[in-house]
Amino acid sequence: MRALVLGDAGVSLDTRRAEPVPGEGEVLVRVLRAGICETDLQLIRGYHGFRGVLGHEFVGIALGGRFEGRRVVGEINCSCWTCGTCLAGRPGHCPHRTVVGIVNRDGAFAELIALPERNLHLVPDPVDTDAAVFTEPLAAAFQIPAQLTIAPGDSIVILGDGRLGNLCAQVLARAGAEVTAVGKHRGKLAMLESMGIRTRTIDDPPPRGEADIVVDCTGSDSGLPAALELVRPRGTIVLKTTIAGTQTLSLAPVVVDEVTIVGSRCGPFDRALGALAAGTVHVRPLVAGRFDLSDGVAAIGRAGERGVLKVLLDVA
Amino acid sequence: MRALVLGDAGVSLDTRRAEPVPGEGEVLVRVLRAGICETDLQLIRGYHGFRGVLGHEFVGIALGGRFEGRRVVGEINCSCWTCGTCLAGRPGHCPHRTVVGIVNRDGAFAELIALPERNLHLVPDPVDTDAAVFTEPLAAAFQIPAQLTIAPGDSIVILGDGRLGNLCAQVLARAGAEVTAVGKHRGKLAMLESMGIRTRTIDDPPPRGEADIVVDCTGSDSGLPAALELVRPRGTIVLKTTIAGTQTLSLAPVVVDEVTIVGSRCGPFDRALGALAAGTVHVRPLVAGRFDLSDGVAAIGRAGERGVLKVLLDVA
Repeated sequence: MRALVLGDAGVSLDTRRAEPVPGEGEVLVRVLRAGICETDLQLIRGYHGFRGVLGHEFVGIALGGRFEGRRVVGEINCSCWTCGTCLAGRPGHCPHRTVVGIVNRDGAFAELIALPERNLHLVPDPVDTDAAVFTEPLAAAFQIPAQLTIAPGDSIVILGDGRLGNLCAQVLARAGAEVTAVGKHRGKLAMLESMGIRTRTIDDPPPRGEADIVVDCTGSDSGLPAALELVRPRGTIVLKTTIAGTQTLSLAPVVVDEVTIVGSRCGPFDRALGALAAGTVHVRPLVAGRFDLSDGVAAIGRAGERGVLKVLLDVA
Repeated sequence: MRALVLGDAGVSLDTRRAEPVPGEGEVLVRVLRAGICETDLQLIRGYHGFRGVLGHEFVGIALGGRFEGRRVVGEINCSCWTCGTCLAGRPGHCPHRTVVGIVNRDGAFAELIALPERNLHLVPDPVDTDAAVFTEPLAAAFQIPAQLTIAPGDSIVILGDGRLGNLCAQVLARAGAEVTAVGKHRGKLAMLESMGIRTRTIDDPPPRGEADIVVDCTGSDSGLPAALELVRPRGTIVLKTTIAGTQTLSLAPVVVDEVTIVGSRCGPFDRALGALAAGTVHVRPLVAGRFDLSDGVAAIGRAGERGVLKVLLDVA
């Protein structure tokens, strides 16, 4: 089969990749469409030392199991379900887990992928395939209201106008918060404004020390220091993006201002699919390009260009 | 009057310091006893750029107001009570506040101190004066259960066996948690063990990734990286001590493991005084030395020695 593979020499198209063999409890999925994520770009830069088929945002047709023949999306953490962490209700943090296209498991930039059947979710009929590709990143945005109590009228600043920042802004505005997105790119900010979300440029930031919640979606080590300036005393900073390597900063303001910092990663697929089915979150405007899987290397190049939102791969 | 003053050349005894003049709503307090805190030592090293009379842990006799003639302790944040932060219920974070012996207000290492009357708390009769000096740091320890929900049986690791680590360990053990204190000093760890608290040395730390909560009382930039190793996924790290300057660390584990980091500072005096009156927290064993105010420079030297817990100043 065809697959986009990350090897020691970088990303390349492998046209003769062996088809995956499903393990116990797993089913094969024929991939229809996939999305390129910031994490894919970071993996290519060396984060996590991953080698194998990239890709963890996808829609496909289940080739077995209870959803056979229907469109599915898949949660990316493949857990053991038997260790203490899983039994404590935190399977997404299973120390033995593999992660689709990220940790010790081939991903979705391929014609076929094998996944635990329990990871699959049926795509509701009203959700078209392009939109369903956004289930995984949209679920990550819905993890914020799953972790925090968002009160109507809370002032929330989103740092970063990229893919994840856009989805977080939409989800939190929908939760009734007063959301301001802060970014660098006029086009991306204009898109958010057209969705009814207030925006500021980083040259004209919101007032210091006033935001109830600041969400760092910058993917940059400038994000947390900026968030510490914007958050109010006893406010909350949500870290959504991982920075490879170390960073240098002063944490005294965290103590003096009694700030809470919450790391936030994967989220609830059911809430994301529900929002896509109800049309309360708009993801189609984020599609900035579409490539055939065979042009996957070019697609990744495009996804890494400044100002580009979501690039999709047509697989089948 | 006599006062220990931090000036450009360091700490010195001023025997002819002008007596403080209470402002509107303030009363004079004749200081009986005071305690030297890690923050005092940090201020002397240049943290915050403070100049004036040091000291914020004290017991005295109110010379006016509703507690006239009685023993009082005082909250250290002196707030405006009219700004948005105060009206939102966060007077301890008032941007216009002065802080006793820390920010723009003379402290308690002096024969007299002026304080807002609303900051004063009556010392219950069963609490002796030495113990009452611990009200402020003990309140800081009680801020942890005020900020977090501690479930009985939660595993809590306290990093640091110093003054604050000891009080945090006692308070959290009293809340029903399974507390392990980790430190460097056999004597201090033995004291904690005699109080029924499990201990480990930093050479033989608790297992990685298992603690529900880790409290960093190290006062060192090694604290947070160590806490990130010990905390479980979705666990909580409490930062109790401020580090002057910057530090370099990797924050990716915060996101990947969805860790919550909570900055924690001053706490509820009423709970601290209640625990001292009930005898449920033991502070007398922490007293490592006692000096007259006139020997305050020597007292500060003693407080800064390795392995020394609380040094008291007899003022009157």
